[in-house]
Amino acid sequence: MRHLISITDLTTNDINAIFQRTDQILHDGFQPTLAHTVIATLFFEPSTRTRLSFETGILRSGGRVISVTDPAATSTTKGETLEDTVRVISSYVDAIVLRYPEAGAASRAAIVSTVPVINAGDGTGEHPTQSLYDLYTIRQALGRTDHFHIVCLGNLKYYRATRSLVRLLARYPNVTMTFVSAPELAMKTDILDELTQQGINYQVTTNLTSVLPTADVVYQTRMQKEWLSDTEYQRLKDQYIITPSVAAQMKPGAIIMHALPRVNEISPTVDSLPQAYYFKQAALGMPVRAALLQYWLQT
Amino acid sequence: MRHLISITDLTTNDINAIFQRTDQILHDGFQPTLAHTVIATLFFEPSTRTRLSFETGILRSGGRVISVTDPAATSTTKGETLEDTVRVISSYVDAIVLRYPEAGAASRAAIVSTVPVINAGDGTGEHPTQSLYDLYTIRQALGRTDHFHIVCLGNLKYYRATRSLVRLLARYPNVTMTFVSAPELAMKTDILDELTQQGINYQVTTNLTSVLPTADVVYQTRMQKEWLSDTEYQRLKDQYIITPSVAAQMKPGAIIMHALPRVNEISPTVDSLPQAYYFKQAALGMPVRAALLQYWLQT
Amino acid sequence: MRHLISITDLTTNDINAIFQRTDQILHDGFQPTLAHTVIATLFFEPSTRTRLSFETGILRSGGRVISVTDPAATSTTKGETLEDTVRVISSYVDAIVLRYPEAGAASRAAIVSTVPVINAGDGTGEHPTQSLYDLYTIRQALGRTDHFHIVCLGNLKYYRATRSLVRLLARYPNVTMTFVSAPELAMKTDILDELTQQGINYQVTTNLTSVLPTADVVYQTRMQKEWLSDTEYQRLKDQYIITPSVAAQMKPGAIIMHALPRVNEISPTVDSLPQAYYFKQAALGMPVRAALLQYWLQT
Repeated sequence: MRHLISITDLTTNDINAIFQRTDQILHDGFQPTLAHTVIATLFFEPSTRTRLSFETGILRSGGRVISVTDPAATSTTKGETLEDTVRVISSYVDAIVLRYPEAGAASRAAIVSTVPVINAGDGTGEHPTQSLYDLYTIRQALGRTDHFHIVCLGNLKYYRATRSLVRLLARYPNVTMTFVSAPELAMKTDILDELTQQGINYQVTTNLTSVLPTADVVYQTRMQKEWLSDTEYQRLKDQYIITPSVAAQMKPGAIIMHALPRVNEISPTVDSLPQAYYFKQAALGMPVRAALLQYWLQT
Repeated sequence: MRHLISITDLTTNDINAIFQRTDQILHDGFQPTLAHTVIATLFFEPSTRTRLSFETGILRSGGRVISVTDPAATSTTKGETLEDTVRVISSYVDAIVLRYPEAGAASRAAIVSTVPVINAGDGTGEHPTQSLYDLYTIRQALGRTDHFHIVCLGNLKYYRATRSLVRLLARYPNVTMTFVSAPELAMKTDILDELTQQGINYQVTTNLTSVLPTADVVYQTRMQKEWLSDTEYQRLKDQYIITPSVAAQMKPGAIIMHALPRVNEISPTVDSLPQAYYFKQAALGMPVRAALLQYWLQT
Repeated sequence: MRHLISITDLTTNDINAIFQRTDQILHDGFQPTLAHTVIATLFFEPSTRTRLSFETGILRSGGRVISVTDPAATSTTKGETLEDTVRVISSYVDAIVLRYPEAGAASRAAIVSTVPVINAGDGTGEHPTQSLYDLYTIRQALGRTDHFHIVCLGNLKYYRATRSLVRLLARYPNVTMTFVSAPELAMKTDILDELTQQGINYQVTTNLTSVLPTADVVYQTRMQKEWLSDTEYQRLKDQYIITPSVAAQMKPGAIIMHALPRVNEISPTVDSLPQAYYFKQAALGMPVRAALLQYWLQT
């Protein structure tokens, strides 16, 4: 039995197998390979995309779902620990998809669970399936997962998705990276040190315009009110808004990505442009997560 | 692809086809015509009947459901617009059933959705499937949808269900209408003007007793605390309570309807009388909504 | 049509049939005997184990589920009575599993429901399926449901599970019972009087150590903050904590049970000991509840 806590739990072989399975789903439709399984989606924090894409993927694969969407409706309110909750629910089901507000929660759950735990976001920790479908999105848009230039933009200090994606992309040859942000929201040194050690070609700048013409991917991020002070939020939230004139500086075939939800950091007037790839990205989350679960529960 | 936002989106042919399908369901049981579909029920406002009848109808038709029942558990809390939420979820599923507290929300959702949007109530706007099964209920009780007299009672100014039903009944020949209410809760002039233009025979009165003997249908409404001031509510809530002695003034075969929930406007002692048709009405909501979705996703 | 409101609604024949069916499920897996059924789980109070074990049991038996997990998302907020809610929902589904915060609620629901109501806990009232799988757990651990000594420990005044279990065990020959608690949390006299009338051998004591060596089952309970004053809770909560040194005083083959959730009344260091049976107990809730519903809807 394997758990999926961090993107490092996925080998490149795993990723290739999951992506091939996703290709098959998109080409031939879903097969009921999860028939006879019941999977728990335990969301102790708000979620729209993550929970609903997992659940749809499970249902389209023939599986069934039990769900917790509100911690206030559970025995957590009576003082039960996450460990006890997970230990019991793992005795009912075939896998647990867990979102929890504390970093490390998915690892704690994995220790006591008798079935695979899939981390669907643990606070400032990890969110491996986000990075997985981000990579699949790049593969679909560019036709490759290597030899490209990605610009990560905006809230790089706190944004879990870009942190994890950067770690994943470091496995692939000739991915060059540019981190564009206000200095106080710069990518943290833990990630930059890893990239340096791995010999990855990266640069840090505040100047978006200078790097747009060579970008294959511009990955925009949300200013997270939940992590910023009010004054920081007000000062920083409008610094790197993507408008049609920003998109117009990108080269043909280059794409704009975003993990969503967005607030105002991409203008809705961009949505209909060919560069806008974030809704396609979100749509791909469902088949990639279905493929992951199909693969994970069969191997 | 068609959306169902307003009762005006349903042609009389549509309604006939949906009613025939409902007849079949009630006679022969459910067929799995929604197998291989996943439908999202997105309820951004409290609901019991509407959500659960849609979901049961989908499940009995072989379909599967993903659901949002609490906006606080979604990315709405992070500032995401309804449009972005709907655009993403529409990429997962085959149809969206939406309840939202603002009038016009279903139309806004329909603009961005890639799958049919079924309006399950948008604030003071529309709730077309309510009127649809109200009409089916009348057809089942009276054996016809024309040549009858309906008395709408109580909270006519704000009550969405009676406003929509009146508009729908105006299509059918020889339906006469009486609107009984306190003057400050009278049916609004927009509806009355429409009826006048269509040559519909209607009257407005405060006197229930005088019109009871000729009514085929008495449609009772809830005093909605959410729209009334406290003093209005206290003054008006007990004005037209239906008791057994009121029911006794109705002619044989005449029925009492109510969209539910009720508070005190129909005495529970009426529930066991032959005139009480509101629980049958609620029960019919499930097969009518199932028939609607079956029809809508096949045509 | 039968409702399951109290453990007294289950005959010994019923219990034997449900346990045989549970044996079959554990030995041969689930059969789809609930195909073509839709069951409503209506939880008007927080729950983890009860709701999710019922839902998993239904789904693994081929049935489908509609669910209410938050009363604030229902028409209860508009003033609807439990009776009206249940009457309507019973017209959609094949059975209702109900948790409600008031004692007597399940009986009130049964009066108006057109389908079987299964009580999943009504406040300080009853929770019959808890006692049912507690008994199954004892049968599985000891190999019998008679001729054993059970020690009920801690919060005996308020704890619904031990009250109901004691009533159920009184049916079986030669079950001796010891009630260990602080005097202010002693088992209430209604239960003790029943036991006396039935000639059951029981004792009441504050001394756990003296009865541990002869116990076959030690049933620990949670100090319920919701029923105790703050000062009572602080004074009583640490009085009978089960630690490895307590477990070591138990005889071979004896087990520790708990309905969960626990707070601190069993040390996590006990979890890996052979006496710890509470997670196995929780796991058995799912197949026992599945067997109950299969049996209930077929007979």
